[in-house]
Amino acid sequence: MRTFLGFICLLPALMASSIMAQTQTSPVDMDIQAGIEMGPQVEGQVFTYATGGETYEGYLARNTSDDEPRPAVLVVHEWWGLNDYARARADQLAALGFVALAVDMYGGGEVASHPDEAGTFSRQVMQDWPAARARLEAAMTELRKNPWVAADKGMAAIGYCFGGGVVMNMALSGMPIEAAISFHGSPAQAVSNPQDFSGRVQIHNGAQDPLVKRDALMAMAEALKARGAEVEVINYPEATHSFTNPHADQVAEQYDLPLAYNAAADAASWQAALLTLDKALNDN
Amino acid sequence: MRTFLGFICLLPALMASSIMAQTQTSPVDMDIQAGIEMGPQVEGQVFTYATGGETYEGYLARNTSDDEPRPAVLVVHEWWGLNDYARARADQLAALGFVALAVDMYGGGEVASHPDEAGTFSRQVMQDWPAARARLEAAMTELRKNPWVAADKGMAAIGYCFGGGVVMNMALSGMPIEAAISFHGSPAQAVSNPQDFSGRVQIHNGAQDPLVKRDALMAMAEALKARGAEVEVINYPEATHSFTNPHADQVAEQYDLPLAYNAAADAASWQAALLTLDKALNDN
Repeated sequence: MRTFLGFICLLPALMASSIMAQTQTSPVDMDIQAGIEMGPQVEGQVFTYATGGETYEGYLARNTSDDEPRPAVLVVHEWWGLNDYARARADQLAALGFVALAVDMYGGGEVASHPDEAGTFSRQVMQDWPAARARLEAAMTELRKNPWVAADKGMAAIGYCFGGGVVMNMALSGMPIEAAISFHGSPAQAVSNPQDFSGRVQIHNGAQDPLVKRDALMAMAEALKARGAEVEVINYPEATHSFTNPHADQVAEQYDLPLAYNAAADAASWQAALLTLDKALNDN
Repeated sequence: MRTFLGFICLLPALMASSIMAQTQTSPVDMDIQAGIEMGPQVEGQVFTYATGGETYEGYLARNTSDDEPRPAVLVVHEWWGLNDYARARADQLAALGFVALAVDMYGGGEVASHPDEAGTFSRQVMQDWPAARARLEAAMTELRKNPWVAADKGMAAIGYCFGGGVVMNMALSGMPIEAAISFHGSPAQAVSNPQDFSGRVQIHNGAQDPLVKRDALMAMAEALKARGAEVEVINYPEATHSFTNPHADQVAEQYDLPLAYNAAADAASWQAALLTLDKALNDN
């Protein structure tokens, strides 16, 4: 049996120890004098971009106590739309050394209020990949102009459920990203004309997920490999759909859906994803 | 201003690639043939220990697809008692290369159903540190006997809120742990007779937390330093109490308490904690 162990974090936490001269005594100065370190100060703001006559309302998160431009990571939301969960993941990436844009795939920041509506929204996107791609390109074009984005480092995209399917299709359509990372993503191929892709694709999959068919997953992995991608598929033995979302159990109960949070799979997939983002964006 | 950036995870995911010979074709074999990796298979079980005529019901989590003994980490629960949140943190640590024991500080696995009850339970523990210490020692003694625990690596303890206070006091009373890591812990000194401690203490604190008084926090940090501990205090600018718990907002609303989840502070503190656990337990 092949095992996948460890994920122990070795990072050399980039603790910049520069103390800037300040004339006022602020709480931060008091903290410094007492030997207290300051954690990241993450702030988020609405980030709009437009294409096809429609405006999209993303959420941009960055660490405002960081003075350096950082590589950008797109976060593609679940089928619900750009909600608190996607924003929280963007905040987490911002705390860990990236500029993170939670994109809006539906326009106007729209969020579904029922799974039927979420299914309609997500199907509409996946049935017109050229339009979906144009939205993602518009977001990336705006991001490159942002002074806090280290555009020369390249970008990456992570996505959840529907958004996982989006990032796999981003790679399959040869979009200019260094890495695509899917968490419990829907592997349906939306791209009709696959293109070469030389980046990394990491697919985190719940082995018990009834919404992801093994055949479709393997077909997507093979299609990506055929185009040059470095593909990694990781199955979490006990995990089902939405395993990374701590609120999955409530949604499962509310709508009778096969979702469940799995803390072990969440932690392991997050560490593996951070490792991949670091390799793809910081080491290049 | 001192900044605390990055926490980017560099870990060399210990992907043991040994494929053991098997005569049956299992789903795992199918996965291996298809190039699919297997994530950690974390399993938890009740773990009992006894002291002072009382039995305590902890929760032991480990990765059953890992063939090596691993260092042990104690997880000390919030004032509620050993609940799903503490179990989830134990599962996460187990997924990342440790054996994790979520301890039971109240006996019989008791969990409070209201903050008043939780306050009573937690006060009773902190008012009798020798008894609290005896419970933790009983847990550690049982753990050392477990064949999956690499006892020669030493142990560490992490704790949340009440449990954060417990682990700070474990260090202050010189208990044999390599590291004590507190998340939004209560810094009240329960130990009347501090002892030398040469390990690491990492205190993750919400700068907006009204339940943690700055004076008490600094007094605890100074007391630990005076006894030889390597102390690190990290303030998260926007975070309040319970900032690591994704369900904090619901509890805050239900009981009108000053709690809130903060995704950025959660992610940053978790990476810093993993780094410290790795240094303290794997590099020694």
